[in-house]
Amino acid sequence: MTTERLKRQIEFIVEIDKIKQIYRKNFVIGSERHETDAEHSWHLAIMAMLLAEHVTSQQVDVLKVLKMVLIHDIVEIDAGDTYCFDKQAGQDKEERETKAADRLFGLLPGDQAQEFRSLWEEFEQRVSSEARLADALDRLQPLLLHYHTQGKSWQLNGITSDKVKERNKRTAAIAIELGRLVDEIIQDSIKKGYLQNS
Amino acid sequence: MTTERLKRQIEFIVEIDKIKQIYRKNFVIGSERHETDAEHSWHLAIMAMLLAEHVTSQQVDVLKVLKMVLIHDIVEIDAGDTYCFDKQAGQDKEERETKAADRLFGLLPGDQAQEFRSLWEEFEQRVSSEARLADALDRLQPLLLHYHTQGKSWQLNGITSDKVKERNKRTAAIAIELGRLVDEIIQDSIKKGYLQNS
Repeated sequence: MTTERLKRQIEFIVEIDKIKQIYRKNFVIGSERHETDAEHSWHLAIMAMLLAEHVTSQQVDVLKVLKMVLIHDIVEIDAGDTYCFDKQAGQDKEERETKAADRLFGLLPGDQAQEFRSLWEEFEQRVSSEARLADALDRLQPLLLHYHTQGKSWQLNGITSDKVKERNKRTAAIAIELGRLVDEIIQDSIKKGYLQNS
Repeated sequence: MTTERLKRQIEFIVEIDKIKQIYRKNFVIGSERHETDAEHSWHLAIMAMLLAEHVTSQQVDVLKVLKMVLIHDIVEIDAGDTYCFDKQAGQDKEERETKAADRLFGLLPGDQAQEFRSLWEEFEQRVSSEARLADALDRLQPLLLHYHTQGKSWQLNGITSDKVKERNKRTAAIAIELGRLVDEIIQDSIKKGYLQNS
């Protein structure tokens, strides 16, 4: 017989399969399909492996960044994907997501529930270099997808350049070179007509 | 201007978006859709975070396991998903995947190309406790999905219990308790009629 601890771990692992049915606003490159939260989280993890070296003048624990990006959207299983440019939906986002964290992380054995909850809170509050890098990547990844799908999702949702700049404004503070990259992508998106200038 | 190094990193990050269009044989729980390689890799990473503690009498570097499961299927972008029970397709799998690794990891800056290549080879060759855990999880995860989709993919592909047992036979050697879990799931799948006994 499997132990109670393993049983709880497996119950959580099965429950979070639902993240594969949470669709984001952006599209997969070369596809008509929206990206799922699981795919997005995987992509962020690879980006963290490759880009953590660009963090400026701060130590970064890559294992912690990986854990953070891997779990950061699990709450959306209950709370749904809140579109980053939807101010109205953003109003009760924190309340919805906190309730989701209580239920979902609560499925785990106590110590692991605590670890996941702490990682998620640290990410949300951006209180460490790891959380600030995770947050910057969480904004850079959709920017790359928007750029390589000719701004389709921006156009469908009436998003203009000021909003995209505002959303990525903190990147340069954690990694100067990534901040420069963000600026270049936004400028080129405007130039190519993917993103409306404002 | 972004550096040549960052340019190569971003080129790789954009290229591997294609993994979101590589579909596996198993289904997402509660859905008619097949799982993508990106989703599968994300799921394995969370499993590694939670289940590494079950590895018996060996030290496991969790960061290495995470990196390994996150990148292990990238070669399938070029080589395609080889169904584990398809003996014929398995014959030239190594050749196809080696060629894919050359091209895909070759997009990265030299040191990172080397790191990704080594991780992938270590995983394929199962030469470390990290690789053996990653491999066991890579077999346990679809088993969980098959079980929670009432064996739909097993039935569609005529898979019987001897094949599933064979595929998961190494799990107990790396983690006794996970081996016990595998046995229980297979027995219960037979009992419930999800998996044909053989």
